Amino acid sequence: MAVSMDDDVPLILTLDEGGSSASAPLDDLDREELPNESKITLSLFPAHCDSLACFSLCSGCSFFSARHNWEMNYQEAAIYLQEGENNDKFFTHPKNAKALAAYLFAHNHLFYLMELSTALLLLLLSLCEAPAVPMLRLGIFVHATLELFALIVVVFELSMKMRWLGFQTFIRHKRTMVKTCVLFVQFIEAIVVLVRQTSHVRITRALRCIFLVDCRYCGAVRRNLRQIFQSLPPFIDILLLLLFFMVIFAILGELYLWKIEVYFNTLENSLVNLFVLLTTSNFPDVMMPSYARNPWSCVFFIVYLSIELYFIMNLLLAVVFDTFNDIEKRKFKSLLLHKRTAIQHAYRLLITKQRPSGVSFKHFEGLLRFYKPRMCARERYLTFKALNQSNTPLVSLKDFYNFYEVVGLKWKAKRNREHWFDDLPRTAFLIFKGINILVKSRVFQYSMYTVVAVNGIWILVETFMLQGGNFFSRNVPWSYIVFLTIYGVELLLKTTGLGPVEYLSSGWNLFDFSVTLFAFLGLMALAFNMEPFYFIVVLRPLQLLRLFKLKKRYRNVLDTMFELFPRMASLGLTLLIFYYCFAIVGMEFFAGVVYPNCCNTSTVADSYRWVNHTVGNKTVVEEGYYYLNNFDNILNSFVTLFELTVVNDWYIIMEGVTSQTTHWSRLYFMIFYIVTMVVMTIIVAFILDAFVFRMNYTRKNQDSEEDNGIVLEKEISKEEVVGIIELYKRSSAAAETAQLQKIVLQMDKYGQMSTLFLGRRSRTKSDLSMKMYEEEIQVCGPKLEIPASLSDEACQSLLSGSGYRLCRCESQ
Amino acid sequence: MAVSMDDDVPLILTLDEGGSSASAPLDDLDREELPNESKITLSLFPAHCDSLACFSLCSGCSFFSARHNWEMNYQEAAIYLQEGENNDKFFTHPKNAKALAAYLFAHNHLFYLMELSTALLLLLLSLCEAPAVPMLRLGIFVHATLELFALIVVVFELSMKMRWLGFQTFIRHKRTMVKTCVLFVQFIEAIVVLVRQTSHVRITRALRCIFLVDCRYCGAVRRNLRQIFQSLPPFIDILLLLLFFMVIFAILGELYLWKIEVYFNTLENSLVNLFVLLTTSNFPDVMMPSYARNPWSCVFFIVYLSIELYFIMNLLLAVVFDTFNDIEKRKFKSLLLHKRTAIQHAYRLLITKQRPSGVSFKHFEGLLRFYKPRMCARERYLTFKALNQSNTPLVSLKDFYNFYEVVGLKWKAKRNREHWFDDLPRTAFLIFKGINILVKSRVFQYSMYTVVAVNGIWILVETFMLQGGNFFSRNVPWSYIVFLTIYGVELLLKTTGLGPVEYLSSGWNLFDFSVTLFAFLGLMALAFNMEPFYFIVVLRPLQLLRLFKLKKRYRNVLDTMFELFPRMASLGLTLLIFYYCFAIVGMEFFAGVVYPNCCNTSTVADSYRWVNHTVGNKTVVEEGYYYLNNFDNILNSFVTLFELTVVNDWYIIMEGVTSQTTHWSRLYFMIFYIVTMVVMTIIVAFILDAFVFRMNYTRKNQDSEEDNGIVLEKEISKEEVVGIIELYKRSSAAAETAQLQKIVLQMDKYGQMSTLFLGRRSRTKSDLSMKMYEEEIQVCGPKLEIPASLSDEACQSLLSGSGYRLCRCESQ
Repeated sequence: MAVSMDDDVPLILTLDEGGSSASAPLDDLDREELPNESKITLSLFPAHCDSLACFSLCSGCSFFSARHNWEMNYQEAAIYLQEGENNDKFFTHPKNAKALAAYLFAHNHLFYLMELSTALLLLLLSLCEAPAVPMLRLGIFVHATLELFALIVVVFELSMKMRWLGFQTFIRHKRTMVKTCVLFVQFIEAIVVLVRQTSHVRITRALRCIFLVDCRYCGAVRRNLRQIFQSLPPFIDILLLLLFFMVIFAILGELYLWKIEVYFNTLENSLVNLFVLLTTSNFPDVMMPSYARNPWSCVFFIVYLSIELYFIMNLLLAVVFDTFNDIEKRKFKSLLLHKRTAIQHAYRLLITKQRPSGVSFKHFEGLLRFYKPRMCARERYLTFKALNQSNTPLVSLKDFYNFYEVVGLKWKAKRNREHWFDDLPRTAFLIFKGINILVKSRVFQYSMYTVVAVNGIWILVETFMLQGGNFFSRNVPWSYIVFLTIYGVELLLKTTGLGPVEYLSSGWNLFDFSVTLFAFLGLMALAFNMEPFYFIVVLRPLQLLRLFKLKKRYRNVLDTMFELFPRMASLGLTLLIFYYCFAIVGMEFFAGVVYPNCCNTSTVADSYRWVNHTVGNKTVVEEGYYYLNNFDNILNSFVTLFELTVVNDWYIIMEGVTSQTTHWSRLYFMIFYIVTMVVMTIIVAFILDAFVFRMNYTRKNQDSEEDNGIVLEKEISKEEVVGIIELYKRSSAAAETAQLQKIVLQMDKYGQMSTLFLGRRSRTKSDLSMKMYEEEIQVCGPKLEIPASLSDEACQSLLSGSGYRLCRCESQ
Repeated sequence: MAVSMDDDVPLILTLDEGGSSASAPLDDLDREELPNESKITLSLFPAHCDSLACFSLCSGCSFFSARHNWEMNYQEAAIYLQEGENNDKFFTHPKNAKALAAYLFAHNHLFYLMELSTALLLLLLSLCEAPAVPMLRLGIFVHATLELFALIVVVFELSMKMRWLGFQTFIRHKRTMVKTCVLFVQFIEAIVVLVRQTSHVRITRALRCIFLVDCRYCGAVRRNLRQIFQSLPPFIDILLLLLFFMVIFAILGELYLWKIEVYFNTLENSLVNLFVLLTTSNFPDVMMPSYARNPWSCVFFIVYLSIELYFIMNLLLAVVFDTFNDIEKRKFKSLLLHKRTAIQHAYRLLITKQRPSGVSFKHFEGLLRFYKPRMCARERYLTFKALNQSNTPLVSLKDFYNFYEVVGLKWKAKRNREHWFDDLPRTAFLIFKGINILVKSRVFQYSMYTVVAVNGIWILVETFMLQGGNFFSRNVPWSYIVFLTIYGVELLLKTTGLGPVEYLSSGWNLFDFSVTLFAFLGLMALAFNMEPFYFIVVLRPLQLLRLFKLKKRYRNVLDTMFELFPRMASLGLTLLIFYYCFAIVGMEFFAGVVYPNCCNTSTVADSYRWVNHTVGNKTVVEEGYYYLNNFDNILNSFVTLFELTVVNDWYIIMEGVTSQTTHWSRLYFMIFYIVTMVVMTIIVAFILDAFVFRMNYTRKNQDSEEDNGIVLEKEISKEEVVGIIELYKRSSAAAETAQLQKIVLQMDKYGQMSTLFLGRRSRTKSDLSMKMYEEEIQVCGPKLEIPASLSDEACQSLLSGSGYRLCRCESQ
């Protein structure tokens, strides 16, 4: 689409290719021509939208030169829409052609993958560095060189970012600045290591996580971290209340129990033991000596636990849950506003001076070519039609606001045939129809449930009978074959009866399919005696999960589980990042301090004992095993930290390490406990929130049928398609033309004048939130925000004929 | 007020004093006279109100004879209102004069106290029965006689109830029937014990709780129990999911780990250990043997804990929280409807044939005489005025619906003077005014906070310095006296500056006051060396709680804490009732099974050991102490059960008992764990709900000032008072007349024509809920519910002139 072809001129002109950001404002004549529109676009921002975005919009004109190049406009609009989608702030928007090149270079999956792999390489280096996992130990020269290499790649990435952002924006961007500082420190330390040929105490390695957190793919982790930090202030408040009561009880404990209890002989001991008691992991041991002497001393412990554990800890959860809930709502609102702002930016780049009231298909198509290059011509037109609710040739801003909802739809011609076998010959059709009816019948379903139940009981009985025997005998048990055959037949029937596509479109069927496949692989492994694959055999009981499909609540719960999974995974990753930091610190300070019989002077000596008795003529090994919970390498550290997370008996690990180092080590363990408590509380709050949200949603839409996602219907007539073909022919886009001509041919074949298309996508959390918060979140988007100082009459006269209704939005 | 005085006839006539329930419907003439009204009252019930209440209203007329007795009407209306307030179902409403006598006998605090004390006596008997607390042991003859006596009292109570309810209703009332059965069983068993002169296995003693639960004063406990039972179905569903995964992992564990782990050698062991692992209390010990042999086996445990502990357990909380939330809302709605129905009942008894559109003051006053006998005449009139928003002499039904909100107000004449010392002479006034300003100044407040903070640090340092020394030395420390003096002066200043009434009306001041008082008592105890009161001294650090007043969040949290306290106490009581049941069962089965060195053959032998070594010439006692956690008497059982509730190391107690009995004993412990889990989850859900509710409420009313409760203002003119006096004089109520005349005298003294009265009460949860659920709970009360089959026009014509608006309520 050459510039000369343009019969219209964009209202706003985009990036200056020469890099000279000489401001060339629209001339006065143009402005006079379109007074209404430009006023509206400028005042469209809600009063409470972030001022930065406002700034970038209002002063936007000054960045652009006067060269009329639609392609540039399309690209910039596409970038705006991407920024809106990814929640990138608009002040990072590329400002000139050089920046644009860097932006495009830094925004594709190859670059993202490079980012991710560098970060992972840096993190994984700790497997091979100083207290290394024995099998993976590398020479200092090797791992320092690897580190330097990875750091250089990071330098390259950062320089690309600087090129794209410009120096000014770069140093204003906090996360990037932190990353740069960490990079600098790491660089120096890596060189020092290389020069000295020996590792020094490098706690700063714990900061390597920032490289992972900054990855494009780890957006969810960043969100989680932000949420954790936002929940911190109320959390800390309640924590102080908790600690306050702890101190009071420590004083009480020391005053009352010191005479009879070793646990409360000093204030420090008293505090430490009450802290551990808060985690319940030294209960009832901490109580027993005083309880043995005076039964009433149990009152002290019962009151303490009731207040701290059962009241304030729950209050903590309540406060975090409340904050979390509130943040979720506000986040959703600000995301929505951000998206709307992005859409406004893009819209302004696509309207023309001649037709300022909307975007024509030609320009919309140009936008989509950059925004979704893989979209075919038919889908582009359908998207345009779906957006355009007024049936005029132009899409107004109000309609354009639905962009993100509509662009995700997958379009398919609606077919009249119901089943995949409708086109087959009569006999085959009847057979398949029969199978279809059978498969869909309740009898079939319930008999399958019965089979699964019987199978479950069978496995249980088998396991019970097999006690002590070797489960993996040579002969494959016949029951295995029988049940597998039944499942196989069911799978076959369902696939043929429903058609493979429909069969696999249900998550439950997919689950059945993979479990049956695994069972089959397990059978193969057994039959051919491939020992490493035996683990597949034991996955068989998972079949039983199918039984839970029977009850609606389970379907709900399990569906929620699947929906939660990505978010849970990102929370897990966040936890792992904290683990990594603590593991590095732990390794630097506590590597090699615990070993068998290390702590014979401490109160937890038994747990670290390793003695070889000889009783009679038999050697008895008395093993405490706790020396295995050490910080000797990063894998061990992770397991130890997981044990600390589970909390039970964590004080044994703490006391063991403390007895070998100083009592300040306890701080490490206590801080770790508090950090995991924060993360765990957030996880609980998240599950609570997600589940309650989902349940409320289900309750609100009880009468509506099964959730099939979002479905839209659009009809396209033959004339329309021919018109589009003309348009493409003019811009000599051969591929698109050919594709569209195929549709015309098909219409001719079936003698239709129009085809119905169905657009489908699954419902996202955003859709649900939109519906749930309808009342609470008043989006000022399509309405025009009026400053409060204006009188209503003034506004009315201002708005008359503009198509906007008067609305006073709640101030945030 | 004699019958002959009545110049009006009640629309509906009440209880037949002769007891003959011969139905005497209103004659046709009466009905013809008041067609509109009787239609409205009959159709006033919302379509979804419980059918029972509808029945009792619609067929209500048939219970009443034609004797015109207003007093009876007043009393019955008062009973209806009481039933509405206490959420008693209307089918227990007394139906004739005999029943009424029994009803009145069974509904006063003396009777309630008797109920409560009998129940407590029965429960406390277990302190003295067979495995008795050593100090409280009683002879079998004594405690069996006591029990028989208590049971006879219960029989008496039940017979009163039967008299009041009638046999038909009595056997329809489930709780009462259960109580009767339990009573019967207990009776027989008590006699058997008395005859055989020896206690047999009496697990049924666990059922004694029903007597406590059925007490009038334990309504909150009954509510909790109902809520627990209502939350059970979803809870059990998720529990099954939990157990399902447990079984799968048990099978996996047995198949994979049995070769290397003692914990997984049989399916039963595997299951038990995974159950204990779910409570984390055998972690990491259960993992260590296999971890020592193969580090990768930790994956099994990590996956298990992640799924079960961190996911499904949280899901459990989420499901319970969701159900709880939902139940709370529905409960509030049904309570509201119940109250409205009660008000409708009462209203119908108070309107007259002559004036069917409302209740006159005379009848309202009659009602209040029964409903709140202690209310004085002035308050009765003010309540009437507050209800009556239309300023006509009659209170309409719509206004009458506010009865419960208004009747709780405490009325006081509004005084012009601001401070208590306004009437004092000039000099004194100036002094007190100065103190008032000083006390209210920020400087004073913050310097007090500083003093408290210094005091806190002082105590901390003191305790730290005192390590090992005796805290309770003879000499009272001077710091104690100094700080106490400061607090005393503060208290004095505040009391004089604000006036004692205003000072003590704030909860925080009350707290200050009592802490200072306790500190003073502590000082006395120290000075006069009264050792048993030393514990008061250590309450001093509670002063520090005042510091938390500084921050708004703490104020919120602590206020919520205080508000939650009654409900928390009732939840605690509910837990104690479960404890009681389990303690009785535990005592019957496990009394005396654990003792020092009892379990040397089990895996937890160490914890039960008690050995007297002689090392050199020193005797070293190696003590495991766990034998103290036994079921030897009810107090010990309670402590043991608390330890089981805290969950840590509970398997040691379980294994100890199991090794001495059969492995079926584990069932007892596991069931107890699940029961406490249910109750604890409910507690968490309750705290979450209450807190989130409160926070949302605060957020919604952010702009409104400090919450001062509900305040209403009403002005009474002299003429009104004189009118009322006339009314009372006619009914020759001397006390009321005298009281009202005092008001007239006072008005005359100050030369006022009218006095302004302020009605005040604290805001209740019900008020808050009303405001919060405004949108969600559509109460059909004051609006007239129309059957869906009627067309809107038909309704409109029906309603024209009736004063009701058309509303279609959501169906439940």
